[in-house]
Amino acid sequence: MAEGEQGTYVKSGEEFVRDTDYVTTRITCDGADGFTPEAGRYRLVVARACPWANRAVIVRRLLGLEGAISMGMCGPTHDARSWTFDLDPGGRDPVLGYERLQEAYFALDPDYPKGITVPAIVDTTTGKLVTNDYPQMTLDLSTEWTDFHREGAPDLYPEALRDEIDAMAQTNFTEVNNGVYRCGFAGSQEAYDKAYRRLFTRLDELEEHLSTRRYLVGDTITEADVRLFTTLARFDAVYHGHFKCNRAKLIEFPALWAYTRDLFQTPGFGDTIDFPQIKEHYYVVHTEINPTRIVPQGPDVRGFLSPHGREQLGGRPFGDGTPPGPPPEAERVPPGHGAD
Amino acid sequence: MAEGEQGTYVKSGEEFVRDTDYVTTRITCDGADGFTPEAGRYRLVVARACPWANRAVIVRRLLGLEGAISMGMCGPTHDARSWTFDLDPGGRDPVLGYERLQEAYFALDPDYPKGITVPAIVDTTTGKLVTNDYPQMTLDLSTEWTDFHREGAPDLYPEALRDEIDAMAQTNFTEVNNGVYRCGFAGSQEAYDKAYRRLFTRLDELEEHLSTRRYLVGDTITEADVRLFTTLARFDAVYHGHFKCNRAKLIEFPALWAYTRDLFQTPGFGDTIDFPQIKEHYYVVHTEINPTRIVPQGPDVRGFLSPHGREQLGGRPFGDGTPPGPPPEAERVPPGHGAD
Repeated sequence: MAEGEQGTYVKSGEEFVRDTDYVTTRITCDGADGFTPEAGRYRLVVARACPWANRAVIVRRLLGLEGAISMGMCGPTHDARSWTFDLDPGGRDPVLGYERLQEAYFALDPDYPKGITVPAIVDTTTGKLVTNDYPQMTLDLSTEWTDFHREGAPDLYPEALRDEIDAMAQTNFTEVNNGVYRCGFAGSQEAYDKAYRRLFTRLDELEEHLSTRRYLVGDTITEADVRLFTTLARFDAVYHGHFKCNRAKLIEFPALWAYTRDLFQTPGFGDTIDFPQIKEHYYVVHTEINPTRIVPQGPDVRGFLSPHGREQLGGRPFGDGTPPGPPPEAERVPPGHGAD
Repeated sequence: MAEGEQGTYVKSGEEFVRDTDYVTTRITCDGADGFTPEAGRYRLVVARACPWANRAVIVRRLLGLEGAISMGMCGPTHDARSWTFDLDPGGRDPVLGYERLQEAYFALDPDYPKGITVPAIVDTTTGKLVTNDYPQMTLDLSTEWTDFHREGAPDLYPEALRDEIDAMAQTNFTEVNNGVYRCGFAGSQEAYDKAYRRLFTRLDELEEHLSTRRYLVGDTITEADVRLFTTLARFDAVYHGHFKCNRAKLIEFPALWAYTRDLFQTPGFGDTIDFPQIKEHYYVVHTEINPTRIVPQGPDVRGFLSPHGREQLGGRPFGDGTPPGPPPEAERVPPGHGAD
C-alpha cells in the first residue's frame, strides 16, 4: 500500500495524487547503498490486502525466495498511525517483535515524515526499514537476488524486453493500477469523470492487446503481468463498487477476464490472494467513502477457478523455467479466503 | 420514494425499517373516501428516480391514463425538507404552482408529521394531497379508473389471479423491492449480511421461476411484473454498488436479465426509465453512504436494448389488449437518458 496512511484520501475539489516519495535504498550485489543480498537477513513486510505489496509477494513466490527472505504479514486494516501485526500471536511480528510497522520506519528515522506503507523490507539485524520503494523492490528481487532464486525460477525481467516491460508497466501504472485510486479518491465529479475515462480507455486497449496475446510482453510471464494482475484480481471485489470503476465488471471483458483467470490459476498468483482481507481493508479503512464500514458479501469469486482457454494462444508461462511449488504451510491463504 | 425523507437512512446498529404509514385515502367509484375518478382533477406527482413512483408512471402509461390524470415531475435530488419541482421553469409545478411537494402535504395537514414521498396524488381543485399510498394507488388505477382506460388497455390485476399476484408482490416487496434498501441502509454488518442473504435467496428463486415462464403470474403482464421491474431496472445502476447488493449484477442472472430486457423493450416500461436521474438521486441524496456525492459514470446500460429471446416462452404481453402508443411529447425521457 503506497497511499498516504495518515490523513485524508479524498481531498475536496482535487484529483487524487499518489505520494511516490519512498525510501529508495537498494539491496544490490555491489552493495552501493550499503546492503547486499543475504539469506535470512531481511524481512519482507506485506499485507494481503494491498496490491502494491501483492506484487512483491508474487515475485518472491515465483522466484522461490521464501527461504532467503522471510515474510511478515500485517492485518487488513490499520488506523491513522500504521499497519499493525494484529494477525500474529500477541499482536507482534514474531521476528521483528514490532506491534506496528511504523516502528521499523522510526528506527530508521525517528522523524519519518511520510506514510507508513507496505511492502517494506526491514533489516532484521537492526530492525530498521531498508526500503519501501515497491517498483524497484520487485525488479531487484529478479535481478539482484539471482544467487538465491530457486531452480527453474523464471526470468521476469528479461534484458531484451526491459524497455517494453517498463513502458507497459508505466502506462498501466498511471492508467490502471493508480487509475482505480484516482476514481475512488476523486475529490470532485470532474476529477472522477476524467479518471473513469482514462481507466476504461486503457482497459479497452488491454482487452484488445490480450485478445491475441497470452501475456503482456513476449510469450512468458513477466513483471508487467505481475503488476497488472494485482489490480485486476481486486477489480470486481473492490474497485468496481467501492471506487466506482463501474462501466463494467472485469468479468465483462472476455480477454482481460480470461487472462486474469489464467494467471490466478498459475502457481504463485492466485495462491497469494485473500479476498476477505482485500475487501475488509478497502471497505473498513476508507471511511471517507464508506462511512458505515460495512463490508459487502459479494462478489461471488468462484469464477476465478473456471477454465480460461488461454492455452490456445500459446505462450510459455515460465519460459525455460518451471512453476513454483505450493506456498510454505505458514503462508497459505486460509480455506474460504481464496476462490474456493 | 417511500423512505423517510427527513433525518437518517442508516441507523447505527439497526436494521433498516421502512416507514409504511401512508395517507390511505382512496379515489374510488363509490366515493367512499370522498373522492371519485374524474378526468383532469388529479395530478400524479412523481420523480423519475424513484422505484415506487415508477410503478405508477408505468401503470398510467399501460392503461392510457395520461389524458385523465396529469403528471408532475420532481427533480432527482431533494434536501431534508422535500422533493422539489426544480426541473420545471421557475422551479414551480405548472399546475399546482408549488416549489416543494411538501406544500401539498401541508395543505392537507399543516402538521403533517411523516416523510414527504412520491408518488403522490394531489387534488388540483384544493391543492391538497389525496394519497401517497403507492401499493393501493396502482391497483386503484387498474380497477377504479376503468372508465378512463384507453382502448386496448391490459388488465393488470385480473380478478382470477389477484391472490396469486398479491402473494407474489408481497414476497417480492419484502425480499427484493425493500430488500435492496435493507442492504443499503443496514446499520450493522449483521443486518447487512442478513439482508443480503434474503435478497439473493429470493433472486435465485425468481431466476428459477422466470426461466420457464415469461411473466411472474399467468401468461400476461400484471401488476406483479410492474412492481418487480422497477427494482430490477435499477439493480446494476444503483443497488449493486451503492447498496452493496453485489453477489452478482442483474446481467449475470440469465433469466432475470432477459425478463428485464423484455419488459424494458415493452412500451410503457423502458420509456419511463431515466438512468441519469436514478443515479443522481441515489448517489447525491444518500450522503450517509456516499459522502462525496460523486455519481458513477457506469454502468453501460446499452444492453437493455439487446435481443432477449423471451418470445420463445410464449405469453401474451397485453392479453387481449394492445401495447400503448408512445408517451406524450412532454413526458418523454430525454435522449441519452434511457438505454440509447
